[in-house]
Amino acid sequence: MVTTTVGVIRESDPHENRVSLTPEITTKLTSQSITVLVEHGAGAQALIPDSEYEAAGASIVTRTDLFSRCDVVTCINAPNEESRTLMREQQILIGLLQPQQDAELVTQLCQRKVSAISLDLLPRQLSRAQSMDALSSQANIAGYKAVLVAANSYGRYFPMLTTAAGTSTPARVLVLGTGVAGLSAIGTARRLGAIVTAYDVRPQARGEVESLGAKFLKLSSVDSAEGSGGYARALTQQEKQAQQQELSDHISKFDIVITTAKVPGGPPPQLVTEAALDAMQPGSVVVDMAAGPWGGNVALSKANETVTVSDNVIVIGNDNLASDMAPAASHTYARNIAAMLRHVLADGEPSIDATDDITSATLVTHDGATVSPAVTVADDASAVVTSEGPAS
Amino acid sequence: MVTTTVGVIRESDPHENRVSLTPEITTKLTSQSITVLVEHGAGAQALIPDSEYEAAGASIVTRTDLFSRCDVVTCINAPNEESRTLMREQQILIGLLQPQQDAELVTQLCQRKVSAISLDLLPRQLSRAQSMDALSSQANIAGYKAVLVAANSYGRYFPMLTTAAGTSTPARVLVLGTGVAGLSAIGTARRLGAIVTAYDVRPQARGEVESLGAKFLKLSSVDSAEGSGGYARALTQQEKQAQQQELSDHISKFDIVITTAKVPGGPPPQLVTEAALDAMQPGSVVVDMAAGPWGGNVALSKANETVTVSDNVIVIGNDNLASDMAPAASHTYARNIAAMLRHVLADGEPSIDATDDITSATLVTHDGATVSPAVTVADDASAVVTSEGPAS
Repeated sequence: MVTTTVGVIRESDPHENRVSLTPEITTKLTSQSITVLVEHGAGAQALIPDSEYEAAGASIVTRTDLFSRCDVVTCINAPNEESRTLMREQQILIGLLQPQQDAELVTQLCQRKVSAISLDLLPRQLSRAQSMDALSSQANIAGYKAVLVAANSYGRYFPMLTTAAGTSTPARVLVLGTGVAGLSAIGTARRLGAIVTAYDVRPQARGEVESLGAKFLKLSSVDSAEGSGGYARALTQQEKQAQQQELSDHISKFDIVITTAKVPGGPPPQLVTEAALDAMQPGSVVVDMAAGPWGGNVALSKANETVTVSDNVIVIGNDNLASDMAPAASHTYARNIAAMLRHVLADGEPSIDATDDITSATLVTHDGATVSPAVTVADDASAVVTSEGPAS
Repeated sequence: MVTTTVGVIRESDPHENRVSLTPEITTKLTSQSITVLVEHGAGAQALIPDSEYEAAGASIVTRTDLFSRCDVVTCINAPNEESRTLMREQQILIGLLQPQQDAELVTQLCQRKVSAISLDLLPRQLSRAQSMDALSSQANIAGYKAVLVAANSYGRYFPMLTTAAGTSTPARVLVLGTGVAGLSAIGTARRLGAIVTAYDVRPQARGEVESLGAKFLKLSSVDSAEGSGGYARALTQQEKQAQQQELSDHISKFDIVITTAKVPGGPPPQLVTEAALDAMQPGSVVVDMAAGPWGGNVALSKANETVTVSDNVIVIGNDNLASDMAPAASHTYARNIAAMLRHVLADGEPSIDATDDITSATLVTHDGATVSPAVTVADDASAVVTSEGPAS
């Protein structure tokens, strides 16, 4: 029997602290006679030293060595330029590759005949796929972290404060977008004792919001934006403007606003305008969980920065808050990776079955061609986006 | 009728963001024909602009003007050297003056015949005094903030995290000292879903701890250290060492440790040793709420600093966490000051009645002599500490 070798690369983005496999999963793999190679320092930012991987049965190697020896390579984000030149034919690459945002990556994966599986393309509504759902596991953590960051930046109490000298009112929190991250933020803000209101373009989100003890904000300007697969459809330009205007009237009534409306493969919609920020009270806090290279949900937000705008309103931009809880995020991500490994390793050996629902949806490239319907290579060899994809 | 004038100084400690009076209280005072003077920029760090005080009826003045015109001056911390030279005979000074830590201040207050009222000397067990209890109101906020700071520095979840890929256990939090700050920390950590254990040298603290849903840690080495007035008595050297040793054996089982054992007028006891820090898991977080100029409860902690020690254990030292929530802390502090003002302004005019329980306990100096039994001036004109005072 040929032994399968799985490798874990060190992430190259300086803002990325997570690692794609943990000692917990390493132990499980090595107990199944799978060889695990870990790039030197891969877990350091998630507080996992090389020695813990070794204790779990892995070997510590260089990146070059890793790419030359592994059947499967796992990662969080798509490999950087240097790593891409090391990828080999038939090698399986598993991560949150975001191929819809990176046409060049898709071309390179085709050229090198890599079998690339991107967890962000997972058909999340399939119950079989849920244990692999890295977008959900990471959004869950990010939503929790967004509330902690907001509460820690806010100068007042989240819960009602009662002392002998009187009572102060609880914080009023508004969550925009009630996907996994939004629901996690609602739950955490409720735990801390805040009064929570949430808005989503999908009217059926009301039930979930209310079951968490929050109030659902109904806008009259947007009737319903239910899309396919449980995701929101894109709004028309007119709907967007009406939504923005109506939201602005509400935002000034809140102390904390958390926005979660990401659009993979495209710029996020602006939900909080500069005028809305101006109308907020001093000391209010806005967390823009969509703030990335293409802007964010909040005017004036900057990716990976905290800025104070207008009359002492704090705007925190971060579309990768899960990375700031790298130990927890890596723990759940590695379990998602393990589930995907079970899926693609039949009897311990790599086996790509493109007729399978999950594989066909997530397989970016195989044997030199694109597979997933979400990704295609245009005539000029650059990938084009054919779907807006899921919101986190 | 002579109008009483109350003044609010700008705090001089760069780590102090609070302000002793708010526009809310200013409005109440001016409606009673009390003149309120505010030093320029006094509220800035608490996000209260001068304009808000003016809108509430106050006038913005310089520090020199303030001391020359006011009957009563309010502050958080004792005035700095410059301000002390401006204090006048019969002027009433109200704040958390900590006279037991500052012999020179007591001497100066005597020399200048200031009537100084220190809220940290309040007989907290008197129900009449509770609306003035600034130590409690500030400790309440500090305990809440300690948990937020810990949770935000911790790389894992406080609550149990359940996803399709499995479950992770909740954080285990240990709170050492269950005064107001400790109880507030317990409540907040429980809100966030952590499993909380707490320890106090007073065995009767068990009931309060358990009523908040936390477990009480019973050490066999310390039988009971119930002191007078509900406070803990000082431990003997032998008891201290036995306690430290026994605590060390427990500490390594916790992810988060929050220590709250302050001793006004003296160095705080060391509860967490270097050996205990060494035994903690990587990523564990320790918040030392007693870390100040005289050390703290935790070996290696530094006041106003976050240090990473041993195997990635994060130690956060801060004995003034209320200042980091200046808007909330100023709001409640100002209400405590307002209650004390009602106490010392009979019919709107200053009236010091040294036979009153509250006044006699809190009045540091009056008419050139010390009053409170907690503070005396020794023959060499330096104040000496006669009581350990309350732990926060």
